[in-house]
Amino acid sequence: MSVNDDRNGASHAMWGGRFAEGPSAIMREINASIPFDKALWREDIRGSKAHVAMLAAQGIVGEDDARQIDEGLDAIAAEYERDGVPEDWSLEDIHMTVEARLTELIGPVAGKLHTARSRNDQVATDFRLWTLDAMQAAEAGLATLQRALVTRAGEHADTVMPGFTHLQAAQPVTLGHHLLAYYEMFRRDRSRFADARARADECPLGSAALAGTGFAIDRDATAEALGFARPTSNSLDAVSDRDFALDYLMAASQCALHLSRLAEEIIIWASQPFGFVRLPDTLSTGSSIMPQKKNPDAAELVRGHAGRIVGAATALMVTMKGLPLAYSKDMQDDKPPVFEAHGLLQLCLAAMEAMIADCSFNEARMREVAGAGHPTATDLADWLVRTHGVPFREAHHVAGAAVKAADEHGCDLADLPLDALQAIDGRIDESVRDLLTLDASVAARTSYGGAAPERVREQVAVAREALGMEDAR
Amino acid sequence: MSVNDDRNGASHAMWGGRFAEGPSAIMREINASIPFDKALWREDIRGSKAHVAMLAAQGIVGEDDARQIDEGLDAIAAEYERDGVPEDWSLEDIHMTVEARLTELIGPVAGKLHTARSRNDQVATDFRLWTLDAMQAAEAGLATLQRALVTRAGEHADTVMPGFTHLQAAQPVTLGHHLLAYYEMFRRDRSRFADARARADECPLGSAALAGTGFAIDRDATAEALGFARPTSNSLDAVSDRDFALDYLMAASQCALHLSRLAEEIIIWASQPFGFVRLPDTLSTGSSIMPQKKNPDAAELVRGHAGRIVGAATALMVTMKGLPLAYSKDMQDDKPPVFEAHGLLQLCLAAMEAMIADCSFNEARMREVAGAGHPTATDLADWLVRTHGVPFREAHHVAGAAVKAADEHGCDLADLPLDALQAIDGRIDESVRDLLTLDASVAARTSYGGAAPERVREQVAVAREALGMEDAR
Amino acid sequence: MSVNDDRNGASHAMWGGRFAEGPSAIMREINASIPFDKALWREDIRGSKAHVAMLAAQGIVGEDDARQIDEGLDAIAAEYERDGVPEDWSLEDIHMTVEARLTELIGPVAGKLHTARSRNDQVATDFRLWTLDAMQAAEAGLATLQRALVTRAGEHADTVMPGFTHLQAAQPVTLGHHLLAYYEMFRRDRSRFADARARADECPLGSAALAGTGFAIDRDATAEALGFARPTSNSLDAVSDRDFALDYLMAASQCALHLSRLAEEIIIWASQPFGFVRLPDTLSTGSSIMPQKKNPDAAELVRGHAGRIVGAATALMVTMKGLPLAYSKDMQDDKPPVFEAHGLLQLCLAAMEAMIADCSFNEARMREVAGAGHPTATDLADWLVRTHGVPFREAHHVAGAAVKAADEHGCDLADLPLDALQAIDGRIDESVRDLLTLDASVAARTSYGGAAPERVREQVAVAREALGMEDAR
Amino acid sequence: MSVNDDRNGASHAMWGGRFAEGPSAIMREINASIPFDKALWREDIRGSKAHVAMLAAQGIVGEDDARQIDEGLDAIAAEYERDGVPEDWSLEDIHMTVEARLTELIGPVAGKLHTARSRNDQVATDFRLWTLDAMQAAEAGLATLQRALVTRAGEHADTVMPGFTHLQAAQPVTLGHHLLAYYEMFRRDRSRFADARARADECPLGSAALAGTGFAIDRDATAEALGFARPTSNSLDAVSDRDFALDYLMAASQCALHLSRLAEEIIIWASQPFGFVRLPDTLSTGSSIMPQKKNPDAAELVRGHAGRIVGAATALMVTMKGLPLAYSKDMQDDKPPVFEAHGLLQLCLAAMEAMIADCSFNEARMREVAGAGHPTATDLADWLVRTHGVPFREAHHVAGAAVKAADEHGCDLADLPLDALQAIDGRIDESVRDLLTLDASVAARTSYGGAAPERVREQVAVAREALGMEDAR
Repeated sequence: MSVNDDRNGASHAMWGGRFAEGPSAIMREINASIPFDKALWREDIRGSKAHVAMLAAQGIVGEDDARQIDEGLDAIAAEYERDGVPEDWSLEDIHMTVEARLTELIGPVAGKLHTARSRNDQVATDFRLWTLDAMQAAEAGLATLQRALVTRAGEHADTVMPGFTHLQAAQPVTLGHHLLAYYEMFRRDRSRFADARARADECPLGSAALAGTGFAIDRDATAEALGFARPTSNSLDAVSDRDFALDYLMAASQCALHLSRLAEEIIIWASQPFGFVRLPDTLSTGSSIMPQKKNPDAAELVRGHAGRIVGAATALMVTMKGLPLAYSKDMQDDKPPVFEAHGLLQLCLAAMEAMIADCSFNEARMREVAGAGHPTATDLADWLVRTHGVPFREAHHVAGAAVKAADEHGCDLADLPLDALQAIDGRIDESVRDLLTLDASVAARTSYGGAAPERVREQVAVAREALGMEDAR
Repeated sequence: MSVNDDRNGASHAMWGGRFAEGPSAIMREINASIPFDKALWREDIRGSKAHVAMLAAQGIVGEDDARQIDEGLDAIAAEYERDGVPEDWSLEDIHMTVEARLTELIGPVAGKLHTARSRNDQVATDFRLWTLDAMQAAEAGLATLQRALVTRAGEHADTVMPGFTHLQAAQPVTLGHHLLAYYEMFRRDRSRFADARARADECPLGSAALAGTGFAIDRDATAEALGFARPTSNSLDAVSDRDFALDYLMAASQCALHLSRLAEEIIIWASQPFGFVRLPDTLSTGSSIMPQKKNPDAAELVRGHAGRIVGAATALMVTMKGLPLAYSKDMQDDKPPVFEAHGLLQLCLAAMEAMIADCSFNEARMREVAGAGHPTATDLADWLVRTHGVPFREAHHVAGAAVKAADEHGCDLADLPLDALQAIDGRIDESVRDLLTLDASVAARTSYGGAAPERVREQVAVAREALGMEDAR
Repeated sequence: MSVNDDRNGASHAMWGGRFAEGPSAIMREINASIPFDKALWREDIRGSKAHVAMLAAQGIVGEDDARQIDEGLDAIAAEYERDGVPEDWSLEDIHMTVEARLTELIGPVAGKLHTARSRNDQVATDFRLWTLDAMQAAEAGLATLQRALVTRAGEHADTVMPGFTHLQAAQPVTLGHHLLAYYEMFRRDRSRFADARARADECPLGSAALAGTGFAIDRDATAEALGFARPTSNSLDAVSDRDFALDYLMAASQCALHLSRLAEEIIIWASQPFGFVRLPDTLSTGSSIMPQKKNPDAAELVRGHAGRIVGAATALMVTMKGLPLAYSKDMQDDKPPVFEAHGLLQLCLAAMEAMIADCSFNEARMREVAGAGHPTATDLADWLVRTHGVPFREAHHVAGAAVKAADEHGCDLADLPLDALQAIDGRIDESVRDLLTLDASVAARTSYGGAAPERVREQVAVAREALGMEDAR
Repeated sequence: MSVNDDRNGASHAMWGGRFAEGPSAIMREINASIPFDKALWREDIRGSKAHVAMLAAQGIVGEDDARQIDEGLDAIAAEYERDGVPEDWSLEDIHMTVEARLTELIGPVAGKLHTARSRNDQVATDFRLWTLDAMQAAEAGLATLQRALVTRAGEHADTVMPGFTHLQAAQPVTLGHHLLAYYEMFRRDRSRFADARARADECPLGSAALAGTGFAIDRDATAEALGFARPTSNSLDAVSDRDFALDYLMAASQCALHLSRLAEEIIIWASQPFGFVRLPDTLSTGSSIMPQKKNPDAAELVRGHAGRIVGAATALMVTMKGLPLAYSKDMQDDKPPVFEAHGLLQLCLAAMEAMIADCSFNEARMREVAGAGHPTATDLADWLVRTHGVPFREAHHVAGAAVKAADEHGCDLADLPLDALQAIDGRIDESVRDLLTLDASVAARTSYGGAAPERVREQVAVAREALGMEDAR
């Protein structure tokens, strides 16, 4: 009795021997994962090839049988590459779909492939391989985005812009400095994906249904063949574990939050009142009714997608909560959130890279806004501390009074007459004036990690080195 | 210059007049919503037909033009019904896709359809119509599930089962009573969807981009034609609002949580140690490696899907957080979570209805477990209170001592010799014995809403009446 | 043996009779809910008074005993009002705390209070009463905020401001219109809380542990005494249900999201480049280092609190997922999220009301920004449609070309020379000019719910009527 | 003018110089973080001491002033240790509270402490120090729990229990094997906290408000003094970053999910029908109404707390979404979720450790359940594969038929008469019998990571070694 014979009639599912009735339509629909897990076909075939090679090396399956199976799997891979994966719900999932096709191609010997394994360790292996690739893709996408940021930061190491806190202009910084802040966030994101990869680098294959197997399999061999560092150490855990998927989703969520912050800034900067940035036409859209509009759609979509990525992480957390060991069918809901988050994240990274690389910054407008609101008041306070040993808290009050006076004079702090300053604090002299310009203020921020152009250039060089950018200047 | 002429060359998007370059590949991909919003085609065409009819009635578009547009829309509906909706990313969304096709079919007059509206109010209308239908579908699915519960509850009004708290047998109840608890949950779920429908019952069409329009449109007419109770009262709100989608997702989440509780119980009850329930073969699966298994997959998938539905609600909450008015492109991320949740919820409702309708309960096993652990200890305490006016707290301690004695005698509480009981409290006499059986205990729970068979039958009758089940017995 | 006697020694917990050891320190800490559920003391005493009155009326407890209990409860209420609730972890929760104190005050007769009830229905009743009050408080806070919005909207029915989509100036609107958009959101929020209250309006008291009781209680009487519409219909459901808490959290989440949108706008509007709004000093802070700063902290905290409120809703959803019936101890985690969300929400509503009531709008700046970017291009297109029957899509392209020409001329669309306009489309004549001013554009948006001052004034009147504001003008 | 002088009157907040009015009551309440951030007092003082020592070493503050400040800080620490931290809302937060007290103690020289720093870098440093400790505490709590698991696993390396998939008995495993699955989960959790610590190991102090400072500070010195590996590289990022808090919450969430799975199993195992485990009295409770109950409250609370910990992670994700740089006040909402999650997580770890260490397993009951349902059917299939080279799929069908026959005979598979087996497949002989016992089945699972007692003992030894348990047997 072959799998193929099962195709017609009530018992056509492979596990169907003991059921009197065929699965109902509802069951077929709720149970079928093939609509989404067919995305794992490459990993499934790769895993099966490694498995059968090991079975042959261990003498569990004959060499001839193994060769037939291996060639059959290659033939299926070629078919799927060419025509896509057929979606037959009665075959439930990608594992059954591949095996059923293998049986059609090579006959009952196909049944030897499933020796010493189960769908439980098979899907854990397939999905882990897929997720490891997704982690690498995220790292690569992040590196590309970082390169764009570092390139623009290098161009704008001296460009003065307002540094905001509470979206209020606080102190002048440089645009290069601001862009490098995102370089740092994405550096941490990369390390998060790298940590996740290291943690996931264990092969579940050979854990079988949940208890391991009595066949004399060589788990080191399959682990190595599939590029894993080692096999998993506990078969029950191996088939119950979806930490790697959660690790991916959590790293993706943090990355998406960082992207949402950058997107928010781009949207605000692109507004007419700010006017800091002009997006490339290729990444904007117009309105179906308002001809004059130029909308930062790409940035908005990046910001919006953060919601769906966080939602995907929440979804899998809720699904995994309170599941007893070992495999439960609930865990079939692990894939859609990861697949969705991966698609969205890669798109966001690419769109953001394009926006950063191609946008034009309006330096004049940034400088104009940076100059409003007496942003160098802190420099006045610092001067009093440095030159006259005034406690900072007192110096801070003096500077506050000077700001108030400037507002009353209707002028910038730097333009307040000396006598007005001295009326507030007699220790103030002409020499402080030069420190109250934007360029002087920025140039003074030389503490490590500070906004001074020289510091920015240093950090650009460090980043270029880390990113392997040719001339790490 | 017609839309059609735009098709070739850089400016083929309808809003493209002022862009020097065509949208890049990334933008095209991140921007296109047609892969998912094509699900709205029926609502889009329905909305357009109502809009053009109103424009004609108001004299804004000529009768002939309106007729051409209306017939063109009907022709498109027929095409889509037959062939599906084409997915051309450069046309972005379902609104552009329909209008572009209309222009192909009837020429430039198609351009009159978009008078006095914008994609912003159009998508708000389409999606609201779709979501209202999804709410009704949820209510219908819930009613069907309730009918199954009530039918089984009627059959098992007298079936004794252990009532659990903390998953410890606490007091005997009846299976009918237990099933009716879920009837109540689903009753609340239905009221939640009904409330959401009432709140969403306002038509955004005519709000245009954000500010309304200067054309003399009749918003009451389009609202009525589309089955809404009234038009929305503020055009800015109307295009910025996705409360209706959140209302759907939140009602769906609570419903999914209720389903997850019932699913959890079915899974536990179907375990060999419990053995309370046997699922229909049609809703179970076997194992690819363990021939003896019969797995409650459908219940597990229902439980697992709760994660994805809650994740969908989280996704939209995060996306909407902090969005300024009016429409932002982030809001394009409203549809995938709702579409996904709807698909999952309807499947869960159908699967659960099938499980409840077709499972077989093992009454003997339920009674056996109900009898273990001295579940009628409370009845002893209550008797002391009732018969001898003992304060409940004291009676509770007496019953606790009796349980301890029964454990020491290695017997059930009901079988403890009278002298052993009297050694604990001299007021206990033979008459208490009859109260300590399972049937007596259950029969005694006659307070309103209690577990007594007569109460269960009453509530079944109330429920059948509410559900319009023919003979409301 | 009284509860009081239990106080010393290992078995001092009321349920402790059968345990050989006292609860360990860890257990005491993880188990004690008194640190947070003491917030329910008023509801607990109110519930107990209603219960004992009913027990007496039904003859289950003697009149004298009932009077003693009732007076004891009053005495405890007076103590707690004066001194707060003592926090003794070994008494676990507010129910035990009250009962233990009652026993101290009136002796063993206190033990009669717990007749025909359990902590399971007691906590369900207490928490439901508390949550119903929280729902009412939310409605009241929302109404107050609405009044502030409507008052300011009435003041600014004619104030021109830029209407944004994608944070790009799209079409001019009025500030009154913009503020009324939030009136609508908060109207829906109120209806959500009202729906939740109607759904929660059932009294669980008398459901006892899970199965109801054999005592001849009168559940209608306690329900009525506590202000509920009716008793719950299923005792198992009544002690397992936390829908009312989820309903509160979901309504609070949507409300918090609306508040976060308004907060985001205030933050952006208060930025120097926008300069639309100036917050009252009472709701801003300065910087510890930058004397010139004036930060919109209150708005930021409102926006930030949305996170914690959404987190609270997520928390309870995850906790409730997959819980079997009836009561499980997990459900003790229902209160902290609701308590936290309530505290935050009421504060957010009050802070936002103060901001809206007391901020000053910079009308000149709003008008200035509204005029930039050719916001009346749509009016040109609409004129072509209306006057010359040009299909909207064609008119839209003409207007797009006019915008481009204005940009090339470096002038506003309204200032483009007529010949330049006619070069684009010969049908354009002088009469169109008057329509392209901000005031004309806004005045034209007269469709129902539109931005025109007359429409705004109408909606203000409707809202004042609905809010019961004295002179509903 | 000293801070102290500010205490009375409208301008008593330190930043208050330019405000005409004092903060209103609402603002005071929404703005004050002292009710929760006083938990940071140790870190705040530690950070200030490192800062002032560096300022003195760099000559920015005189040695004498620095000594006074340092001694003042020590005096405050002694006060807080003794009396707790006073909660004066008008002082807003722990930073102001400490500085105000310092000014009271040592006068205006206290004002020198805030030189070259801001509350923005100060709170980032304090909270990071606190969170690093919380990460270490989690690792320590996990290690203790792992030790308990490994000890019990060693005791039960040979104890047969049913291995479940879908909560259906699948194949026999050993209890030791099952417990080690959790060892693996908690091993990954520890690595997640360790990764988070490594990533957070950068000191923000000296980033000042957002731009760094012009004072010649030595950030390496303060970083080293506070035990950080290095200073942060970008000052804007340093004050805007809460990744470390999210890393903590995400690691805590995964850990909580693992704990919820173990808790779920304990709850199910402790139910009467399972009867696998008896919890220690110290970690159970009774019922206020049902004297016979023994409830697994501690396990339920662990499971329930997973909700609140996941909710805390969601809260901070939502709060951080879309925040522009640099510091926004929304970020004040970072602490309550982390503080709450930390308290809950440590309690869960301790409670679970106690449960694992002190529960008693019912070996006889586990073996009994393990034997039901023909759990060795896979062994029969494997034998056919191994001995007769039957393709696994065919062997699987044979075993399925044997299970069916055993059900019809009403006996266990191992007891099915040989002729009945041979009627199904003629190749089956007597030798297969010995393989179908529970002990033989378990003993056969010798693949790496498998359930066989020898494999379990190996993994116990590896784990003991890794945990530094004295005799790593």
